[in-house]
Amino acid sequence: MNIQKFDLARYLKEKQDLVNKFLLKTLSLYGDNRELIEAMKYSLMANGKRLRPILCLASSECINQINNKGTDKFSIIPACALEMIHTYSLIHDDLPAMDDDDLRRGKPTLHKKFSEATAILAGDALLTHAFYILSTPEIMIKESMQPATIVKLISILSDASGTNGMIEGQMLDMKAGAVTEQLSSFDYLKKMHRLKTGKMIQASVQLGCLTAEANTEQLKNLSLYAENIGMAFQIIDDILDIEGDESIIGKPVGSDLTNKKMTFPEIIGLNESKVYAEDLVLKAIEALEMFGDHAIPLKEIAYYIIKRKY
Amino acid sequence: MNIQKFDLARYLKEKQDLVNKFLLKTLSLYGDNRELIEAMKYSLMANGKRLRPILCLASSECINQINNKGTDKFSIIPACALEMIHTYSLIHDDLPAMDDDDLRRGKPTLHKKFSEATAILAGDALLTHAFYILSTPEIMIKESMQPATIVKLISILSDASGTNGMIEGQMLDMKAGAVTEQLSSFDYLKKMHRLKTGKMIQASVQLGCLTAEANTEQLKNLSLYAENIGMAFQIIDDILDIEGDESIIGKPVGSDLTNKKMTFPEIIGLNESKVYAEDLVLKAIEALEMFGDHAIPLKEIAYYIIKRKY
Repeated sequence: MNIQKFDLARYLKEKQDLVNKFLLKTLSLYGDNRELIEAMKYSLMANGKRLRPILCLASSECINQINNKGTDKFSIIPACALEMIHTYSLIHDDLPAMDDDDLRRGKPTLHKKFSEATAILAGDALLTHAFYILSTPEIMIKESMQPATIVKLISILSDASGTNGMIEGQMLDMKAGAVTEQLSSFDYLKKMHRLKTGKMIQASVQLGCLTAEANTEQLKNLSLYAENIGMAFQIIDDILDIEGDESIIGKPVGSDLTNKKMTFPEIIGLNESKVYAEDLVLKAIEALEMFGDHAIPLKEIAYYIIKRKY
Repeated sequence: MNIQKFDLARYLKEKQDLVNKFLLKTLSLYGDNRELIEAMKYSLMANGKRLRPILCLASSECINQINNKGTDKFSIIPACALEMIHTYSLIHDDLPAMDDDDLRRGKPTLHKKFSEATAILAGDALLTHAFYILSTPEIMIKESMQPATIVKLISILSDASGTNGMIEGQMLDMKAGAVTEQLSSFDYLKKMHRLKTGKMIQASVQLGCLTAEANTEQLKNLSLYAENIGMAFQIIDDILDIEGDESIIGKPVGSDLTNKKMTFPEIIGLNESKVYAEDLVLKAIEALEMFGDHAIPLKEIAYYIIKRKY
């Protein structure tokens, strides 16, 4: 593969389509006309970027190419599980008791469209269902996975999304909003993002690595790549909240300020934030060196993260 | 073991102590002084009956005795996971957007004691953590389990607590409250309870069976036992809401009526509900026949379910 010829937009579209197909498939197993399923579908199929599943698929592809294996059938399962957990976290974060957001990806948030109770339950259901598809892949793909691999995938995913990962990150985020004066520090902000989004982005590449049987060195380097793009992604999020186009990002610009969110531009300045994000992306790309051309999609995703408009 | 000599109170206390010890152990791995962990602990250690973990432990014990094996080290893991999921479901069900309850087991509900946001996140964390301990048992016991067994445990538990189990049951429960007139039927009520609590009680014995390597016949009979005691348990819950002692049940008597909950006494009458519960318990005990004296604890638990005061 040659980077000049690589068409990222097309690559992302192909992977998004694949993820969407499988996400719909797993929901369709439960039949229609049920409010719970409709609510899960409303949020799950709301035109997300599918960054986490794509990182999982691209990582497994990279390792499989190096090992001279074709695309594996299995990585779509953790890819879908990652998106389900990401979606549940957005649903719960948007609730009135949390960030109290009315819009998400340009559409009413789930609790606005359905009800608060349904939003809580649909979130719970997506989280639970992520572990169901991981432990029961035969409902989605014909072959079953190695039990030992499944167990590792579930361990990593439940750690990244739990008490020492995403959920603690959201706790820190809420506290930061309440007592900005005492806690405004670059380190607090980095810790919060590392937990809230970083660990899930790292888990995304790790799950892809494990399904493709990556070795320790490969896993270590792709984890480093993910750590850096995860933080860069969050910085760009903060920048888009200031400089973004409301019609593209799908929510009001300046909402971080309104919600008293701690942000990178607030703490280190807007230009410094841009420089910092670019620096992180360069570090991420350095970590890809050992993979050669097999990492072109991952490299392009890293560039895309700082160039993105939403 | 002889039924005349069997001391149920002592048996329950021993198992409760064991479950409490392991639940505390898993939380202590995360250190103290964190609001999220404190919130998880507040609800998890709130003097629950530990019915689901005890059913899991008693089932695995029963099968292990038949197979002439000692108590296994593993069943405490699914036992704790069951209690974590049960506790998360109580926390979320109590939320203002759901049942809006102020008291649980005689103490303020979690969102009253902490905050609504913390209650949502602590519930999410307990659910996630259940899958973490199942996939990572080595953090709690020295030995690791067979990966194939772990995968089965997670598949059963995520199915029972998910979209086709507990969560759908809670959806049906909420709908029944809103449109009682149209939906008041014995079948609706039974379906709601089978999903909301029945599948988790069945999962409790199934998880115990799987860790002890039960055969198909054993699994089938213990599942039938659980199906019957699960429904009986729910009927007694409804009866206690009418006839119970507020200081013992830990919440106001008559709250089902206040909350417009559909109940067995309302639909089939109070006495008929008692007869029905007793009939179910007898069916449950019939299903234990093949296990002989090894099922004495399970048998006594079935009797306890209709005699219980809270």
